[in-house]
Amino acid sequence: MGQALELVIASRTLAEHGVIDAYGHATVRSESDPQRYLMARNLAPELVTEPDILELDLDSRPVDAKGRALYQERFIHGEIYKARPDVMAIVHNHSPSVVPFACTGHALRPIFHMSAFVGLGVPSWDIRDAQAGSDMLVKTAYLGRHLAGCLGSHPAVLMRGHGSTVVAENLQRAVGRAIYLEMNARMQFQATLLAGPSGRIVFMDDAEVAANVSWQNYERSWNLWRTKALAKLEAERKGEATP
Amino acid sequence: MGQALELVIASRTLAEHGVIDAYGHATVRSESDPQRYLMARNLAPELVTEPDILELDLDSRPVDAKGRALYQERFIHGEIYKARPDVMAIVHNHSPSVVPFACTGHALRPIFHMSAFVGLGVPSWDIRDAQAGSDMLVKTAYLGRHLAGCLGSHPAVLMRGHGSTVVAENLQRAVGRAIYLEMNARMQFQATLLAGPSGRIVFMDDAEVAANVSWQNYERSWNLWRTKALAKLEAERKGEATP
Amino acid sequence: MGQALELVIASRTLAEHGVIDAYGHATVRSESDPQRYLMARNLAPELVTEPDILELDLDSRPVDAKGRALYQERFIHGEIYKARPDVMAIVHNHSPSVVPFACTGHALRPIFHMSAFVGLGVPSWDIRDAQAGSDMLVKTAYLGRHLAGCLGSHPAVLMRGHGSTVVAENLQRAVGRAIYLEMNARMQFQATLLAGPSGRIVFMDDAEVAANVSWQNYERSWNLWRTKALAKLEAERKGEATP
Amino acid sequence: MGQALELVIASRTLAEHGVIDAYGHATVRSESDPQRYLMARNLAPELVTEPDILELDLDSRPVDAKGRALYQERFIHGEIYKARPDVMAIVHNHSPSVVPFACTGHALRPIFHMSAFVGLGVPSWDIRDAQAGSDMLVKTAYLGRHLAGCLGSHPAVLMRGHGSTVVAENLQRAVGRAIYLEMNARMQFQATLLAGPSGRIVFMDDAEVAANVSWQNYERSWNLWRTKALAKLEAERKGEATP
Repeated sequence: MGQALELVIASRTLAEHGVIDAYGHATVRSESDPQRYLMARNLAPELVTEPDILELDLDSRPVDAKGRALYQERFIHGEIYKARPDVMAIVHNHSPSVVPFACTGHALRPIFHMSAFVGLGVPSWDIRDAQAGSDMLVKTAYLGRHLAGCLGSHPAVLMRGHGSTVVAENLQRAVGRAIYLEMNARMQFQATLLAGPSGRIVFMDDAEVAANVSWQNYERSWNLWRTKALAKLEAERKGEATP
Repeated sequence: MGQALELVIASRTLAEHGVIDAYGHATVRSESDPQRYLMARNLAPELVTEPDILELDLDSRPVDAKGRALYQERFIHGEIYKARPDVMAIVHNHSPSVVPFACTGHALRPIFHMSAFVGLGVPSWDIRDAQAGSDMLVKTAYLGRHLAGCLGSHPAVLMRGHGSTVVAENLQRAVGRAIYLEMNARMQFQATLLAGPSGRIVFMDDAEVAANVSWQNYERSWNLWRTKALAKLEAERKGEATP
Repeated sequence: MGQALELVIASRTLAEHGVIDAYGHATVRSESDPQRYLMARNLAPELVTEPDILELDLDSRPVDAKGRALYQERFIHGEIYKARPDVMAIVHNHSPSVVPFACTGHALRPIFHMSAFVGLGVPSWDIRDAQAGSDMLVKTAYLGRHLAGCLGSHPAVLMRGHGSTVVAENLQRAVGRAIYLEMNARMQFQATLLAGPSGRIVFMDDAEVAANVSWQNYERSWNLWRTKALAKLEAERKGEATP
Repeated sequence: MGQALELVIASRTLAEHGVIDAYGHATVRSESDPQRYLMARNLAPELVTEPDILELDLDSRPVDAKGRALYQERFIHGEIYKARPDVMAIVHNHSPSVVPFACTGHALRPIFHMSAFVGLGVPSWDIRDAQAGSDMLVKTAYLGRHLAGCLGSHPAVLMRGHGSTVVAENLQRAVGRAIYLEMNARMQFQATLLAGPSGRIVFMDDAEVAANVSWQNYERSWNLWRTKALAKLEAERKGEATP
């Protein structure tokens, strides 16, 4: 399957799971040229089809924009791909349960084995540390670099008042991590309230995290998501379904 | 696209997002006559089609009622349009996460960049300050004026035991604000519990609010909502979908 | 519209809103004989069609069972119809947000104008006060009478570890009340947490409750629910939709 | 109805209710050979059809794998069937509200009559007690036996950082219990917060639990779930629905 179609599937899956609404975006590094990445034109992810996928260089300039508008926050992706040669796919999103953690200084911890990657550390970034009085969007290379610096070698970074950015070695892992980051936040919120001020929560320990993360590619999920997205795309093509 | 069709799209989008159930209503000021506004006849928003759209003057009298029943709370709209020449669209709704804020004296604060307008101030109105023993509905010009007075120059006003009213310079912004007001309330509720009694929440500051609000028109969302609503309307016309 | 079809619409609407899953039931007192009431045979409410509607006397014996199994808890309905000549419709359900109130001794109070009837008082019934070691079901006339006694002249009664029973002067009002009882519980739960141990919540006062309850028939909602349910029934008949 | 089709219905019902996403699995002990059990090949439950059902022995080796990949955690099932001759069906799942209980040491208690079986005791298992530094998966016979030991004679066991495993004397009871275990956890979470640190919650007592559990087979639910699943399967076969 081509990378463009995979990116369509990823975009629609994230929308389907409520991880992305009209905003947020998934990208994948080009298999043929690691100095480029694929990203949809400026469009709500659940409307994306293959012809909407563009190629950008790592300075986030389109190779051929085909007259299409670009996402303003593409610099999140370009600058992370520059800083992290190991990263092959990125999801930026506003999943709702994550936001209350970043603005209260509560660190996400790995509470659920499907979210084990959280145990690799999820730092929290405040755009104010890079620029005072911003409109909160990462719309310059400078801000993208600053965010990438905070991400460091971690699998995800929270963005205060905004959402999160999740990275991985392949697209399906990035999508799975974005979905299960939200799930971890929901579970940790509930556990925090149950435990109370002096309460104790048993999180996954480092050895458990390492053992799980080493292989977790969300294969069975990806098979399900791909099956459903392809069926939906086919129905849209036949006019039997609407977006 | 005509204003009536835009209002149909707005009504259905608000229902789709759970911001409005059978109650609540969106209106838009007439482009051809700023002393008039467009509003559906008394009907659940998710059933509204173009022929249901009526024109009312700013005293909330229909220009031609066509024998149709009117929403009792139309005075919310007429009186705000009178008091606020800058306002071109209004959404009144009962989105569920907002109600617990108004009745506990917790002020909504801007916790999420998509809801930055909350930082312009969202006052809370108690109908008791205007009329004791009311049935809670804003069904007179007097109550509408009182509510408009509390709204002042702000983008939204909470209504104790009832819901909220959101205003904007155009319809898509009003719809976006209604949806993200609910989202802000959900996130702030969770952050408040996570932070605890003595906890600290980092909200957007005034400069961040100003920078974001200046351009935020929910363009990409509106494109998605319009696409989906038009497809649904077309399917209903063909008999391939039911309301 | 006949009472049987109205009851089908009510049953499906309650299922659609998550107020009833496979359990719970709506009934209506017969218009032609006030000593009888209409109730579906023992079937999940979202599967009910007109031929499933049976007539029972107030001792909850079927006039003609047509070989169909009956709901075990029909005595809830029969005994309330006996005790409350003003009651024309009853909904028994397990809506999830209500259960935590009954078992913690937190009284529901009217927090939302669509739920104003809560202000008429919603007592809480514990089946243990009638029978120790029961299986929690109201499956005898004795238990039905005991529950009716606790309900008294109120519009609803919570049932510890079980759910609630809601009554009204007509079917659409009973359905609306069941839906908005759940909504009130959700909002009051959130307000209680926001307010904290020593916090204050402004509920509707008695005059506001009286002014609202006097006319609230959920007319616009009922029109929406009926439109959607009839369209679904028609699609099922044509084989274009499945239950 | 054959056991394979029943297992398809169970799998899809669990997915439909959000109790299982792509992970988790239901199994049933073979009617013809109690030393064998039926389980789908390694596939997301909502995609399962009859040809995907395989037969395994109690050491969790497939009788004929037909070249299909197996679920890694099949040992949960095989080892419990060995240890518990009374158990005829098992559901392993990650339903989200259960996880915060296991990791905070809060025991689930029976708060809702549909979840009465919780009162038979739901122990909590920590995989660390069997193996340090695991990847959290029960993918060996040893781990399956250890889990079965913790389950003992109870109807369910929580798994720290993972989910739960639910057992019953027949498949529909196991499915019903998995769905209502999640519901019990949601209600108990809310009741715990409402009750506060020193608060009191009235749970079902032992006699009530015993009276309810003795007959509760979720018959009416199963009829609904089967009707809906069969209609969906038929529509998929005709190409009128996609997974």
